[in-house]
Amino acid sequence: MRIVRFSSGGDPKYGIVKDDSTRIFVLRGDPIFSEVKLSGEVFELDEVRLLSPVIPRSKVVCVGKNYRDHAAEMDSEVPSEPLLFIKPNTSVIGPDDPIVLPNWSHHVDHEAELAVVIKTLAKNVAVEDVDDVIFGYTVANDVTARDIQKKDGQWTRAKGFDTSCPLGPWIVVDPELNIDDLRVTASVDGDLRQSESTSKMIFPVRELVSFISHVFTLLPGDVILTGTPAGVGPIQPGDRVDVAVSGIGTLSNPVVRR
Amino acid sequence: MRIVRFSSGGDPKYGIVKDDSTRIFVLRGDPIFSEVKLSGEVFELDEVRLLSPVIPRSKVVCVGKNYRDHAAEMDSEVPSEPLLFIKPNTSVIGPDDPIVLPNWSHHVDHEAELAVVIKTLAKNVAVEDVDDVIFGYTVANDVTARDIQKKDGQWTRAKGFDTSCPLGPWIVVDPELNIDDLRVTASVDGDLRQSESTSKMIFPVRELVSFISHVFTLLPGDVILTGTPAGVGPIQPGDRVDVAVSGIGTLSNPVVRR
Repeated sequence: MRIVRFSSGGDPKYGIVKDDSTRIFVLRGDPIFSEVKLSGEVFELDEVRLLSPVIPRSKVVCVGKNYRDHAAEMDSEVPSEPLLFIKPNTSVIGPDDPIVLPNWSHHVDHEAELAVVIKTLAKNVAVEDVDDVIFGYTVANDVTARDIQKKDGQWTRAKGFDTSCPLGPWIVVDPELNIDDLRVTASVDGDLRQSESTSKMIFPVRELVSFISHVFTLLPGDVILTGTPAGVGPIQPGDRVDVAVSGIGTLSNPVVRR
Repeated sequence: MRIVRFSSGGDPKYGIVKDDSTRIFVLRGDPIFSEVKLSGEVFELDEVRLLSPVIPRSKVVCVGKNYRDHAAEMDSEVPSEPLLFIKPNTSVIGPDDPIVLPNWSHHVDHEAELAVVIKTLAKNVAVEDVDDVIFGYTVANDVTARDIQKKDGQWTRAKGFDTSCPLGPWIVVDPELNIDDLRVTASVDGDLRQSESTSKMIFPVRELVSFISHVFTLLPGDVILTGTPAGVGPIQPGDRVDVAVSGIGTLSNPVVRR
């Protein structure tokens, strides 16, 4: 089952799309915060504009250097514990929204990632209980101003600027999804740049969520980005960057400079 | 004029306290988001529990190494541009709320700071227009797990954990307040540890807000922490840490370990 957030002209709506269907059954309210009830309205996927499936009330928690091959391409050591940073909710955009390259950077990279959407308030969650606090999974692009990341040392400006966190196209809610072996890919204008299995994560998804919940209280709608594999590279105005996770979907965004 | 957020038993309320008074005139709703209208209720300051005067919907943006003497005590160079990091809204606590030392750190420091509360959506604000987007000023303690700050390199875990952002005791709204020469202090159990004027900031307040608004869209209720002067030092369970800014007030919190 897929949860979409979309616009058909007015305020954002939430809907359910079954796996083998293109019909959106509209929900009354945000399913993370309210009981799942159908409104009776139905749309087709191709007649609406999909939005980021979630806007976190609190935070997007991200993990750096969580694939060995990416740590190597960055000339970095593999961390002994997950390395955390935060993107603010003002960085989130949805499918087809433009990634706006900031005028204070000359080198912005794509980073394809599997993203976790949190369901309930979660604090100090044991690894074996993590599934109870997860609403579902989506795809993220951890857009990074690489030159500023190196200059600042702290990654907040380089990874937290407006439009640096495309999310979507929907949230997959599927207990059968094997999150420990999904393929994460990125393509720029159709050229494949990143492709790796989540089985190559240094800290797998459930360990990450547990670790993070021991640092921050996670709130419903918070999002966790689980790190990017090797193959990151620059994006330019006019490019279209697609990030995808097998079993979830493809998130596509144009790149602009204003 | 001071804006307080408080509990008198039920849901949080907002109120106005005049400079020379201890009477709280209760407001209808949050004055950042709604018209300032008195409800008619009145309380005395000493009969209510003050809460954090604001819970950001988006983020607390913080600035590192913004006083030369503090950069020196950290063996750091003075940055050429403001060095930004983010504390999530889940780190915010209010006056008298306990700072809970995380069990994964053995060295947690106080850092007294002047804090700015944002009034309106703000993006790409020129330095000379910054006053138009500021609601008022409060006091913050940028509580820092120093050992983890050094271990991680990224400061997010060390400075973003639950209870790491005491704010309060109220927001001062006063066009006469000279924010470029206020005294920022910290005391632990009555011993003065930090004391410096905001005139010693490397990047003064209005420059910081302008710079930050060129990176992130600031939302009403977002908070900016402007850096800490020299004299940071460890806090222990049982301590009471007071941070203060002249012309604003004193924010006092006990320290516990659970």
